[in-house]
Formats: sequence, C-alpha cells, structure tokens
Amino acid sequence: MTKPFPRHFSQIAQRTEEPPISWLMRLTLDHPKLISLAAGFTDNESLPVAGAHALLREILGSGKTGRPALQYGSTQGDQKLRDLTARHLQSEDGSRNERAYAAGRLLITHGSQQLLYLVTECLCDPGDIVLVEDPTYFVYLSIAQSRGLKCRGVTLREDGIDLSQLERVLESLRRSGELKRVKMLYLVSYFQNPSGVTTSLARKAEALNLLRRYEKAAGHPLYLLEDAAYRELRFTAKDIPSALTLKGGTDRVIYAGTYSKPFATGARVGFGLLPEPLFTAALRVKGNHDFGTANLLQQLLARALDSGRYRSHLETLRARYAGKAQTMVKAIRTHFPEAVNWEVPAGGLYVWAKLPKAATSGVKSKLFKTALRRDVLYVPGGLCYADDPTRPKPDHEMRLSFGGATEPDINAGIRRLGGVLQTMM
Amino acid sequence: MTKPFPRHFSQIAQRTEEPPISWLMRLTLDHPKLISLAAGFTDNESLPVAGAHALLREILGSGKTGRPALQYGSTQGDQKLRDLTARHLQSEDGSRNERAYAAGRLLITHGSQQLLYLVTECLCDPGDIVLVEDPTYFVYLSIAQSRGLKCRGVTLREDGIDLSQLERVLESLRRSGELKRVKMLYLVSYFQNPSGVTTSLARKAEALNLLRRYEKAAGHPLYLLEDAAYRELRFTAKDIPSALTLKGGTDRVIYAGTYSKPFATGARVGFGLLPEPLFTAALRVKGNHDFGTANLLQQLLARALDSGRYRSHLETLRARYAGKAQTMVKAIRTHFPEAVNWEVPAGGLYVWAKLPKAATSGVKSKLFKTALRRDVLYVPGGLCYADDPTRPKPDHEMRLSFGGATEPDINAGIRRLGGVLQTMM
Repeated sequence: MTKPFPRHFSQIAQRTEEPPISWLMRLTLDHPKLISLAAGFTDNESLPVAGAHALLREILGSGKTGRPALQYGSTQGDQKLRDLTARHLQSEDGSRNERAYAAGRLLITHGSQQLLYLVTECLCDPGDIVLVEDPTYFVYLSIAQSRGLKCRGVTLREDGIDLSQLERVLESLRRSGELKRVKMLYLVSYFQNPSGVTTSLARKAEALNLLRRYEKAAGHPLYLLEDAAYRELRFTAKDIPSALTLKGGTDRVIYAGTYSKPFATGARVGFGLLPEPLFTAALRVKGNHDFGTANLLQQLLARALDSGRYRSHLETLRARYAGKAQTMVKAIRTHFPEAVNWEVPAGGLYVWAKLPKAATSGVKSKLFKTALRRDVLYVPGGLCYADDPTRPKPDHEMRLSFGGATEPDINAGIRRLGGVLQTMM
Repeated sequence: MTKPFPRHFSQIAQRTEEPPISWLMRLTLDHPKLISLAAGFTDNESLPVAGAHALLREILGSGKTGRPALQYGSTQGDQKLRDLTARHLQSEDGSRNERAYAAGRLLITHGSQQLLYLVTECLCDPGDIVLVEDPTYFVYLSIAQSRGLKCRGVTLREDGIDLSQLERVLESLRRSGELKRVKMLYLVSYFQNPSGVTTSLARKAEALNLLRRYEKAAGHPLYLLEDAAYRELRFTAKDIPSALTLKGGTDRVIYAGTYSKPFATGARVGFGLLPEPLFTAALRVKGNHDFGTANLLQQLLARALDSGRYRSHLETLRARYAGKAQTMVKAIRTHFPEAVNWEVPAGGLYVWAKLPKAATSGVKSKLFKTALRRDVLYVPGGLCYADDPTRPKPDHEMRLSFGGATEPDINAGIRRLGGVLQTMM
C-alpha cells in the first residue's frame, strides 16, 4: 500500500504497516458527507464535560491537591488510583482473593492500549506466537505484526472461543514443535471488539485449563491476556467475573482495563493487573517509554472514582449506548436483507454483521466501494482476522459502530448501507 | 542487582535492568529525613496551579471546546498544538525555513521521553550503535540498554562534544566495519542533563558535518537526535538556534522538545520534529503504543501557548530556577572543598560537581554511603556514562539537582554533603 522503509530502519519500523484505521480516517476526510460507522470514537454528546470540569476545579482549586497533580508521579501510577482501581475490580469480581487484587500488582498506563503493547513487548520476541480470537481487535493485530509475531486464530462462538479448536491448535503446535514459541492467549472478553461477544466464565476457565495442560510441553507459563476494555459498557446484562477469579488465575491472567472508554477518551487512563515477574518487567519498560502516566489525568480519575461521579457517569453512558444500539438494531431490522446475520448487542460499541459467505465486504469489494460512493463507511470484517496461514481469512463481515455516530447518522447510515446490500444481494 | 527474568520473557525484558532512579527513589522512602538532590523533579512551589485551573475552566466551561478535549484525537496530535509548536520553535530558531518547521513533521508525544523511545525503536535493532555524550542523560542509556544497543561515548567539553574525538570514534568504527551499525548521535544540547553544558551552534554544525562525511561509508543517513528538553529553562543566557537551522538539518536532525518541564510535569506533553520517512515510521509505532497523546492535555497546552500563559509562566519559572541555582552555587562555594570543580549553571536543573579523579562517588563508594547516612542523596556521576568498553567509566562526579528541593533543603543538603566531602578529602 505504501513504499517500504529504508533498510537502515529497525526491523520493527520495516514491519510496521500503515494501520487500517489511518486510511479509513483519511477516507472520512476525503468524503465530507460521509457517515462513518467505522470509527471507534465514543459518544460525543455524553462526554462528561461538566463532571470533568467540577473534578478539576476541586483538584486545582487548592495548591495542596493541585501541585501533586501537576508534578511527576511514579512510574507505577498514583497510589490512590491504584487502590481505588484494585478495590473497584475486586468488588466487580466479587472476589475475596486479596492477593489477586493487590494494588502492588497494578500498573497505570496511557490507555489500556499501552498495557497491551508493554505486555507484548515484555513477553514476545519476533517469531513468537500469540493465540487470538477469530475475529479480534484489529489494533492488537497491528502490534503483533509490527513486533514480528505469528498469530493463530481460534473461532469465536456465541459465548467465547471454540475450546475444541483451541485444543486442536495447541496440539498441532505441540506436534510441530512450535509450542515453545506460544506466549499467550489474547481474549477481548466483554462485548468484544468487533463481534460484541462476551466470553462466559466457564469458557474462560476451560481456556485457562487448556493452557495449563500445555505448559509442560511449552516449557513455560502460557498466559491469558484478558482485555476487558468494554466490560463496563454493558447495557442490562449481568456482569461476569473476570478470569482473575479462576483457580490459578492470579499467576496466569494479565487483566487489561481502562477508564478511557467508560469516562473520557481524551483523558486516557488505562491499567493492568499483572503477575510477577511480568509486572516488574512491564514497569521497567514503561519507565523507558514515558516514566509514568500523566499525573493530572490520574488524579482526575481517582477523584471521579472516589466521588461517585465515575459511577453516575457510567450509568448515563450505559443508557446512552443502549439507546444508540437500539437505534442501530431497529434500522438494521428495517433496512438490511434477511440474509444478513447479526446479534443484538448487550453492551460495547459494535454490531457485527455477517453476510452470506459468498459475499465479500473487503476494501476492494464492490460492496465497500459502493457504500463509500453512497457516503457510508464500515470496518471490513477481514481486517479483524489475523494473518493465520492455517485457515482462509473470512471476508464477508462488517463491524458497525454506534459509538461515535449520532442517532440520525446511525439511521441514515444503516439505511444507505441497507440500500446497497439490497441491491447487491 | 535483581534476579534475571525467566527465559520465556522477551529479549527486551531480559535486558531491561532496574532503572537507577528506582532504587534512588526507594532510598528516599527508606530515609524519611533524606534531602534528595538526586530527583529530577521540578519545582513544586511554582507549578502553575492557578494557570492550569483557569485554562481548564475555559476549555471545559463549554461543550463546544470541552467535548473535543475529552474525545479521542489523532495519533499525530492536535492540529492547533502542532501549529503553535511549529511556529513557537521557528520563532525561537529565528528561521525562515518553512519546510523544517512544517506542522506535518511534528508528532506530539507523551513527554519527550516517548519521542526518544519511538525514534530509537524505529531506527535501531539490537547491536546497533548510538553515539552519546560522556556524560549523558541516564534514562536514555536505559532505553539503549533495554533495546540491546551499543553506545560509544564522546567527551563533553564546555561548549559541546569533543569534535576530534567524535571523528576518531567514527573513523575507528569505519575501520572496524561497524559504521554501518551506527544510527545516530544523541545530544542533549541545552543545559545538559547532567552536566549543565550547552552545545554551541558551531559544535552542532561541525558534528552534523562529520556525520555527513561518514554517511557514504555507513551506507545510510546518520541522524542527529537533538534533545532540547531544557532549552527553555535558561536563566539569562541568550538562546542558541537548534540544529534544525543548519544546512541539511531538515533531513538529518530529529528535534525532541517538551512542555512538561517548562509548564507542568504532571501534564506531560512532549513533541518531536522528524524527517521523513522516519516521521511516518514513528507515527505508526506511536499508533500501536497508545493511538495518540491524551487530548485533554494537548488542549491545555495549546491554550496555554495561545493565551500567553505559557510564556508568562516560563518567565516566572526561569526566575525561580535562577534563584534556586544561585542558592545552590552559594552553598557549594561555602561548603565544598576547593578541590571540587563545578560550573555556575546558566539554565536547566543541575550542577555537575567533579571531585579529583582519585576520589570515587559511585553507589558503593564511601562518599555515597556516608552522604546517605548523613541523609543527603546525589546521583552518582558514573550512572550518566554509557557502558563503552573503549574507555574507563569516570566515577568521581555527582549530579546535584536544584529542581525539586526547596531552598532550605538545598542549603542544608549542600552543607551536609560539603561536610562529608571535607572529612573525606
């Protein structure tokens, strides 16, 4: 798509392709009337402007709280924010395991994206293998590709990955002698990006057990990286405990969470709970990246959590996204052909639409191009599948986001896209 | 110092040692009465609490400006902040070269530390060579060590690196066939951390010329990474144009700057000006790290620059640090033995004190331990020298910071340290 970097650049630079989201965003700029159902932006109307204003007024209203917020913090992150986060998580998980939720295992990061990067940087060398869901979060695939990793996809079913397929993959890697290169299984376990699927606790437990069973053959721990970015964006569904609650989870589960999407994406604060010695490795590398996450943002989030404003904002946000999801679902029901399959989302930001397998939705497809001419943009499903040579890459799906678009735009966008689909199918 | 990471961790993790600053900070916790002249913290009293408060009130006082500040931005950074930064730099440099200061070459980062990391990640593979000053910024050495780079040190003189030594180093690398592994020269060119030295424009020009002369033998461009983190923290000295103003500078100079130290370290915003295609490589990798720098902080800085508050805060800060530097200088004059050499700083945050060469100041030295017993901490100079097997590592210097300590603590700390020095020398 673009010319390669010169040979004196690092291997990382040379491998790093233009991220799909960049040219999707460029398309948006080139088509000023475009309705983007592709962007992962969050809802604009409900951003907590007044809330953040009040919290920052409290923080910066006195030198006593204002100065620490404008000074360097520690690399690990603000003690109070770590305490609050650890307690928040433990209470969500309903767990009594104090060790699993110790604030000392918690690293505050510049969004959970940075945590994914750090964990991958600390665990994986080029040629190592990460197991991912089919489909998965496409920016994680960019990290993996940039860092020279191989990914193996495991099909996502309605309540998590296909466990017998996971076993087959592990077994085939054991047979081929590649199991020692496997470092972790990456699951986006709540209202997954892109599919909307939530992984049941039973699936997480089975997956962790399977990983355990293959550790001896691998010669090292096989971690479960649980990306819970969308966990709090549930509409009415009951929360599901994280993999940290599972037997042995404390030592094998890396839990990535974020305050970015549930509070404000412009005040990017994420976090991770990591087992030792991975925690120490990630902490050191984070020190080299940036010393630590901006303290002002951490203090903002600590105060939001402590004051109850975070919780009340989240309630507003859930209702808001539930409403937008319903708008999209209604529009899809009205405008999409019967042959398109999709699920009503119970949380998150996305509807995942599956066309009949004969159809194609990729960037070079007639569908994508026609939709673009009709000024509507989606994320082609193929972008959400790893380059896994052991299976064909599905190319008949679409990720449709109701996060950033307004309700009139959701309606108009789905109507246009439905029109294109009706004509072509 | 600590046990090695398990072998299934990445090479990066395995190489990454505990950063010196971590255990220096732990010492601080273990000695509650300790006066730290070691920390790189900034002055607490002068942090712009009221200023940041007013600016954030303006931003978050309306949905029109508040919402964009709380929403995702682009990976490259806020357009207005990039425009303001580019113009700010161009005016500081007094340059008419529009291409060099194009906002399109500017990447906003999470502190300038992240820019240093990204540039190194994009240019250097393990085994590559970076030329650094002797002494240099020790966290850059941590990046280099973590990423498996070799560093070659070039002695810093009173107005920049020793150019004939730079030439000798380049020549010896050419002869040994290692020149193709050399990627860049890293200079902290203004009120250097740790030495306080500012590099003259003539030295920068000569250094760039020398690099140019060896490019043919290297087979690729040799970049000059100019870290200008302390540029704006000058007391009364006249500003010196950056290496971007030099002939050929646009295509070879990577300029790293920051708003973190001159405004607020808790609102970490840094930036870099990079030549293509390095800019594109760093932008892509930054996308994988974190998508982009927190938008709220960017809007805060853009408004600080645009409103004139940044400029007026900087004037306050310069006077403040000039005063603290003077306090430290006076105390050193009074309490240190004659045999200790040091320069009156013209900017920045540090005094670099050189003991007679027979003395040692390292963490295992009697001096360091005695000082610690007397509750005063400095950064041992040896930490600021690369592991360069071609020369012995000096071990008789101390970095003394007047940034974070209060004036009474500067006085008391230097008095204690002087007492220890008097006794031991």
